[in-house]
Parts: sequence; structure tokens; C-alpha cells
Amino acid sequence: MSEFDFDLDSIINTIKSKNYKTIGLQFPEGFKRKAVNIAKELENKTGASIIISGNPCFGACDIDTALAGKVEIMFHFGHSKMGKFNNVVFIEARSNADVLLCIKTALPLLKTRKLGLITTVQHIHKLGEVTKLLRENGFEAIPGKGDRRVSYPGQVLGCNFTAAHVDCEEYLYIGSGFFHPLGVAIATGKKVIAADPYMNTAEVVSHEKFLRKRSGYIAKAMNGKIFGIIVSTKSGQNRIELANRLAGIAKKHAKQVHLIMMDLVTPDQLLAFKVDAYVNTACPRITIDDAERFHVPILTPQEFEIVIGERKWDDLKMDEILENDVHE
Amino acid sequence: MSEFDFDLDSIINTIKSKNYKTIGLQFPEGFKRKAVNIAKELENKTGASIIISGNPCFGACDIDTALAGKVEIMFHFGHSKMGKFNNVVFIEARSNADVLLCIKTALPLLKTRKLGLITTVQHIHKLGEVTKLLRENGFEAIPGKGDRRVSYPGQVLGCNFTAAHVDCEEYLYIGSGFFHPLGVAIATGKKVIAADPYMNTAEVVSHEKFLRKRSGYIAKAMNGKIFGIIVSTKSGQNRIELANRLAGIAKKHAKQVHLIMMDLVTPDQLLAFKVDAYVNTACPRITIDDAERFHVPILTPQEFEIVIGERKWDDLKMDEILENDVHE
Repeated sequence: MSEFDFDLDSIINTIKSKNYKTIGLQFPEGFKRKAVNIAKELENKTGASIIISGNPCFGACDIDTALAGKVEIMFHFGHSKMGKFNNVVFIEARSNADVLLCIKTALPLLKTRKLGLITTVQHIHKLGEVTKLLRENGFEAIPGKGDRRVSYPGQVLGCNFTAAHVDCEEYLYIGSGFFHPLGVAIATGKKVIAADPYMNTAEVVSHEKFLRKRSGYIAKAMNGKIFGIIVSTKSGQNRIELANRLAGIAKKHAKQVHLIMMDLVTPDQLLAFKVDAYVNTACPRITIDDAERFHVPILTPQEFEIVIGERKWDDLKMDEILENDVHE
Repeated sequence: MSEFDFDLDSIINTIKSKNYKTIGLQFPEGFKRKAVNIAKELENKTGASIIISGNPCFGACDIDTALAGKVEIMFHFGHSKMGKFNNVVFIEARSNADVLLCIKTALPLLKTRKLGLITTVQHIHKLGEVTKLLRENGFEAIPGKGDRRVSYPGQVLGCNFTAAHVDCEEYLYIGSGFFHPLGVAIATGKKVIAADPYMNTAEVVSHEKFLRKRSGYIAKAMNGKIFGIIVSTKSGQNRIELANRLAGIAKKHAKQVHLIMMDLVTPDQLLAFKVDAYVNTACPRITIDDAERFHVPILTPQEFEIVIGERKWDDLKMDEILENDVHE
């Protein structure tokens, strides 16, 4: 049994019951190594023709619409549903990791009775047992509802922390990595305790170092004259209206701005353009995670508003993509 | 005056005369550094809203259809026309390089009176003076017509040598690099003299080392059990019919094959799949130029036919994409 399991039987049933003959499969990078074996099993058991997507994929916002347009049905693995597609089925990945141990580690760090409970989709099925354990220890855990970009109460994405809009004074995050809890800390201004089920650790997330680093990029971009505003054509990342609004404001402030539209946003691909800084309206994680790999500063929309004098430093917000932000 | 010039006045006239308000610009990698300045000039002189394509671009086969779908008109720089698009205008790049010097260098290497004359689009406007110089030296130079993938007599692409289908015993190629003359040598089986206008050199192209290297990849792939057949969704590279035909033949020979569909084909992106070799039906240059960067052998369709026993070693042909090969 691997750490993640997919429900292939239900896929086979869907294909057989609808008699689909042409099937697309899309996997995010972490699951691509399973692609050939899954394709072989589905082909053997259904007789359908299968095409695997070879394109990079980093989220449910990143549907291979070209492949989906060439097959009767496409199965997208590893993410919960986002967006409206006629023939895309989302096959979520559920982690088998035990989450209760790290919650026990987190207990001494929890200071208030009412907690906002947040996690990523691969642990979402464990929230019931987590809530029970917390209740036994005197805590009330509340998973917030979130907007239409997320599928489950308590689910956060790298670009969406709306499930953290609950009445509480601190948050408990279950999952690996610091991006999501950091995002919640900045988006809400409240204390976040991150519990990692893989390392069985728990700690309070600090966002001061992060904000210092971002302030450095903002300050450096202040000297810029030419800005490239990046717009992604990916299914769940296209914020062209936001880009146009930023371009309009920037021109009033006598900045030279250019809209650059692309699919995958990479530091390599943006080396070629002669600009002083980029503003990224595509995936907000790129702005943060890849910041050091760009040859010029790359800013969030909110950071760019500070640069051009339309927002105060104290009003710096986390960049999120909300349910009505995406151009479809 | 830079080495390459674009006719911006004609672009401005087109925009003004049709009163276009939304404009897309697409540049191949070598010209992307000019993008911001060209966008600024067009914006200043026409008042239109301009969006630059940030996607990688390596040929006229590689139209940014997503961007073209979002603007009234898109100007694609650096290549001659390929394919049918309602709102894409091709702005060719013409090199100012003097070509006569390298032709003079080539004269002693020419052994027959009747020559096939071939070049790439950036020198195509020089074929008149080249023909004249050759005639003065007793040679008859014939630029062949080529199929619909090329725009001019004598024009060759990395994937199309149909302009070399002329009645002659040897070829004179004008341009830099060895890919195109090598392609013509292998596609025609005849002697090719390559004259380089940048280096002012001329030499006879030898394809023996190249064929030895390809034989090595074919031999290595003979042991493979699982093959990934790559299909590109790029506008001028989609050979899905060929891929399906190869998959059908391979299955008869009890090989496990999987179709992998993608936009940009890169060694990095194909690391993830567990296959023993790839067969590339996308851009033929990738198979040759990037061969050493793939973790497993990557074969042309003709090489794969040798591997599965459907073609003899002696019948190895250069992979070309012809006018009717592309699925639109």
C-alpha cells in the first residue's frame, strides 16, 4: 500500500458504464511516475484508448484543456474539483498518514478554546478524528466553509484561505510545508500552529522573516520604470481583469507597463524580457516560492499597488485567488 | 541598424486602417528581447491595447493560439507563414548579412553544373543575387518549389526539405548551422555544400557521424519494452494520426506503448514517465538536437519502425513534417 491511493475501480466503472472509448489522464508532477502503470491497467480493463498528458501540472487550477478537448472524458488526479468542465473528473489523493500524533504534539501550543481548523485536501478525510481528539482535550475545532474554489470545509489552497474565515483567535493547520499556514497567518493576522503529520512536529508559524523579505522586493521595485504584468491562460489562474485594472492605475502613475500572457510561468522564460520588475497575477505561490530565481523582483498585485502608491505598507495583504476572480 | 529588421510601419498601418483595439505580439526566443520596445512603439503610435506572448516559441509551427483567441489580431514575428489562422499575421525577419562572400568561398567545392539552391527564410531575399553570381561562374542554381509548409522556392525548414526535390546532383545551402544541410543530405542522399554567411565559410556536409550516432540510439531502444509516443498539440506539429498508426503497429509486435500529449516537449518534462524509450512525432529537431539530454533514447517515427521490425536499416529516412501530415 503506497502512501497515496487512487480509486481506480470507480474510474473503470465510469468508463464501462458510459462506454467511453477515448480517455485522457492528467497527473500533477508528484504522481507522474504512476501514469504509465495506471494507463496500462485502465487500458487492459476497459479496452479504451488512453492519452496521458505530458504537460507540467501544479494544481486543480491547471487543467489540460487541450487534452480534455480531444477525448471523451479526462481524469485529473491528485486535486479536488475546481472550475466548470463538461468532461473532467477529479480523482482526489488521500494520504494514509496518521494525523493524530502531530495533533498531540500541538496540544501544548494551543492557547484558546475555539480553533480554526485548516488542512489541505489530502488530509481532509481525517478532520473528523482530529475534531474528536481536540474535543476530548477541551478544544472546539471549527473548519470554515470557504468559497467555491475549495471543495471541503477547512480546506485551504496555496491561493485561497477563505476556509479560515471563522470566528476564532488562533488556527491549527494540519499538513506539511509552511506555505499554507504562513498564508493563513498573513491573510488573517492571527496566530497559526502548524502540525506536520509526516514529521510529527508542531510549531507556531512566524511570518516576520517572510514579510521582511517581501519588503526588500517592494523597495527594490520602487526604482523600476518598466513593469511586466503576467497573466496566465491556465484554467483557474486567468486574472486578466485584475491585470487590466493594475495596468490602468500604473499608467496614471506614469509607469510603463506591458501585459505578458503565458501558460506556465517560469523564471527562465521571463529572462528574455527587458523589464525592471514583474507583477504576477497567475499562481500566487510562484511569486513567493520562486522569488529568488527571477532576475528582477516579482511582486504580488498588492505589493505592486504599494510600489505605485495606491496602497499603504501597513495594508499589505496575502495574494489570493477568490471564486469570482478568474476569467473563464 | 540591427542585423534583423522588422517592418513596423506596415504593422502600424494595418492596425490603424482596420482600427484594431486589442493586439497580440508573439516572438521566437531570439527576438524576445525586442518585445517590450516594439510593444511600446506600437502602443504609442496606435493607442491599441497590446498583450505580449510570454510562452516559448521555436517556429511558425508554434502559434500561440490561446493569445490569438483573446485579441483581434496577433502579429507573429520571425517566421514565414504556416497554417491557416483567421487573425495571425506573420512578420518575417530578413537578415542583412552579405551572402556573396561565402558563395565565393564555396565555388571551388561545387563539382556539377546544376545545383539545388536552398536556404532559410532570413536569407531568401538574397537568392536573386546568389543565382546571378553562380550563373556568372557557370552554374545553374535551381531553388525547388517545396510544399505548402514553406512560403518560398528554395526555403527549407528543420522539418521540411521538400524544396530540395529538384533535378540536380548536388546542393548549395546558404545559412548557419548544420541541421538544415544535414537534413537535405539525408533526405536526398546527395552531396550538400553548406555556405555560412556569418562565418564566411563553406564546406561539404558529412552525415556519417550523425548516422552512426542515430544507429546507437536505435540499437539501445531495441531492448525496450515500454515506449512513450509523444504527440504535440502545437499548431503545426500535431501528428496524432501518425502516432496512432505507430501505436497500432507496435501493439501487433507486442510492445507496450502509451500516447503522451503535450505542448512543449522537453527532456525535463519527460523524466517523470517510466518508459524505456520515446518516439517523437512532434518537432523532428527535438529528436536530433536534444537527443543527449533525454534520460532514455528518443527516436524518430522511422527509427521506431526499424526497432519494431517494420522498416529495414537501409531504409532509414529523415523525419519530415509534410503539408498533409498535421492534424488541424
